[in-house]
Amino acid sequence: MTERIRDFLHDRRRAGLDDGPVLVVDLEVVRENYEKFARALPDTRVFYAVKANPEPKLLKLLAELGSCFDTASVAEIRMALEAGATPERVSFGNTIKKERDIARALELGVRLFAVDCEAEVEKIARAKALTATDAVRVFCRILCDGAGAEWPLSRKFGCMPEMAVEVLEHAHRVGLEAYGVSFHVGSQQPNTEAWDGALASSSRIFGELAERGIHLSMVNLGGGFPTKYLKDVPAVEAYGDSIFRALSKHFGNRLPETIIEPGRGMVGNAGIIESEVVLVSQKSHAEEEVRWVYLDIGKFGGLAETMDESIRYDIRTERDAERRIPCVLAGPTCDSADVMYEKTPYWLPVSLAIGDRVLIEGTGAYTATYSSVAFNGLPPLATHVI
Amino acid sequence: MTERIRDFLHDRRRAGLDDGPVLVVDLEVVRENYEKFARALPDTRVFYAVKANPEPKLLKLLAELGSCFDTASVAEIRMALEAGATPERVSFGNTIKKERDIARALELGVRLFAVDCEAEVEKIARAKALTATDAVRVFCRILCDGAGAEWPLSRKFGCMPEMAVEVLEHAHRVGLEAYGVSFHVGSQQPNTEAWDGALASSSRIFGELAERGIHLSMVNLGGGFPTKYLKDVPAVEAYGDSIFRALSKHFGNRLPETIIEPGRGMVGNAGIIESEVVLVSQKSHAEEEVRWVYLDIGKFGGLAETMDESIRYDIRTERDAERRIPCVLAGPTCDSADVMYEKTPYWLPVSLAIGDRVLIEGTGAYTATYSSVAFNGLPPLATHVI
Repeated sequence: MTERIRDFLHDRRRAGLDDGPVLVVDLEVVRENYEKFARALPDTRVFYAVKANPEPKLLKLLAELGSCFDTASVAEIRMALEAGATPERVSFGNTIKKERDIARALELGVRLFAVDCEAEVEKIARAKALTATDAVRVFCRILCDGAGAEWPLSRKFGCMPEMAVEVLEHAHRVGLEAYGVSFHVGSQQPNTEAWDGALASSSRIFGELAERGIHLSMVNLGGGFPTKYLKDVPAVEAYGDSIFRALSKHFGNRLPETIIEPGRGMVGNAGIIESEVVLVSQKSHAEEEVRWVYLDIGKFGGLAETMDESIRYDIRTERDAERRIPCVLAGPTCDSADVMYEKTPYWLPVSLAIGDRVLIEGTGAYTATYSSVAFNGLPPLATHVI
Repeated sequence: MTERIRDFLHDRRRAGLDDGPVLVVDLEVVRENYEKFARALPDTRVFYAVKANPEPKLLKLLAELGSCFDTASVAEIRMALEAGATPERVSFGNTIKKERDIARALELGVRLFAVDCEAEVEKIARAKALTATDAVRVFCRILCDGAGAEWPLSRKFGCMPEMAVEVLEHAHRVGLEAYGVSFHVGSQQPNTEAWDGALASSSRIFGELAERGIHLSMVNLGGGFPTKYLKDVPAVEAYGDSIFRALSKHFGNRLPETIIEPGRGMVGNAGIIESEVVLVSQKSHAEEEVRWVYLDIGKFGGLAETMDESIRYDIRTERDAERRIPCVLAGPTCDSADVMYEKTPYWLPVSLAIGDRVLIEGTGAYTATYSSVAFNGLPPLATHVI
């Protein structure tokens, strides 16, 4: 909680505007985060993962600070450009793109694309021919087991390293620049050493392609940099040190160009959601019966990452000095799946009451844009960037 | 697939408007569904669960047909009223309501409210006093194990039957009309007998309160009526018969007033999503490697109910006559959780190709309003009601 957010919420309540949950993002925290990344990985370009939070003011600040942008769609490319980024600072990082969206991206000036199979390479080559673009760079995403991450990635993105060699060779063959390799160690990755294995694979891919006369330039180190929820997480510097050691170990003194794609690590701790307790109840008088606390925000209003109780947010109330008891925490919709913490109940003050405000910390990333458009007639989460 | 939807999609494609997934809802199917419910349960009022799909044209048709409306929020109450329902035909069926929203509902003329604890009764009593309303009816939701439902409900809503007696007695004491009991047997309930146990509990609650001089009037039988996905489901008539038998068994010849709250059963089979294959790929050349098929719609674009692979939609392609192979089916976002069917892969035609259109059947309910507001910059699912 920053003083600026506290003042904002205070003014909002005094003005009687506090009906409904709100996300407040403090740009000063984002600025600090950006500077920490820049210092911790001085030779690495930062591509902010726009999907984490695409608020225009936030993108504008990052563009001013010199950030580049990792985008997932043509709409996100446009947002990055509108925020002031030049097209060279934008990567189309989604491995799943419609061919006509690739053409649109090329028309907007974007020249860096993610792929993980030959079919995607083909699309880019065709779109390049169609739009008469030259010098289009592709990097191939490889699978990475993400062991240890709190939000482990599936096998959805990337291919096996052996296949990446073929994909990049194919890209070279059809007239694209085989530019590099990317991977993702898993979101909210607490293990600073998690990059080592994927960098070893990357180095082998560089080597195998070099033998075929294709010289890759870049390793995209992805995201995975955590933000603090309930547990403490290592500092960005520790990630920087560990990544630099792994790069040196696997690439020797011929270090590749590197980029990172922080999203959660850039904006997670810059945002706080204020929510209201709508109901506190029990299902029976039985002694073992747990208390249920219902907030005016839930899984469908922005807290989608509580899915499977993966992310456990730090929740603050005005009664935190009191004794706490285990509670099931649920959202306000008529949907039985809209329960945030039940398998591992959440400890909340015994006197927490209907109408109390609670602050959900570390909610700057992957909240507002996840919220449903109008489920149960409830409006999506409002965001204020200050 | 109805002829009307086929024609609509055909015209849309000819007009070149088919960039992005779309949900098309056929009102003729909704009309048939409503009539089936009305015939199968002739003495039961239908309260359509607005949250299933709140499209204005759909609500208007149902209002014209005589349907009442089960609403989850003040916004949904307004939608029902705008569609032409009078306030007596609207129930505020969410057990989790802000007191100021209860007051707003009372001001809009709504007089029927769901509760499942004394704290919620208190809120309604206070809002009633504040708005000087008389004759406010409450029904208490009881827990029901929902055994057998494909989308089993959690313990989020309802209280134990013993407690319901106290809650309703409390409502009576504070000047509300203790009107009845509600329960929900679980969404997409294939067991037509599932209502029996909850009706036994309801009858006991009626009896216990009658002994205290409080005479309940209504049993809200909830929803749970299934729509056809991959598996066949019993006809509405079978549910009607079974429910009538259970009512007679537990209430004898003093049958209470009854209402049902179909949502999925009313609109599920009226809607079809047309989506596009964005990518087909494999992660390696290994023989055991499964094929991945990526659509332009996924968990965050409207198919949230594929969560935990609960709902398995029937997916049609133009190549269905061909040999099928198991595929992982995933959405278009840069989110590793956006995978719909992986644990139990989905069998799709071996020649399914990038750019192919697929039809996802039975998607009229719980899709468009679930879709995220702008995750990955992708727009929410567009709906056309025809």
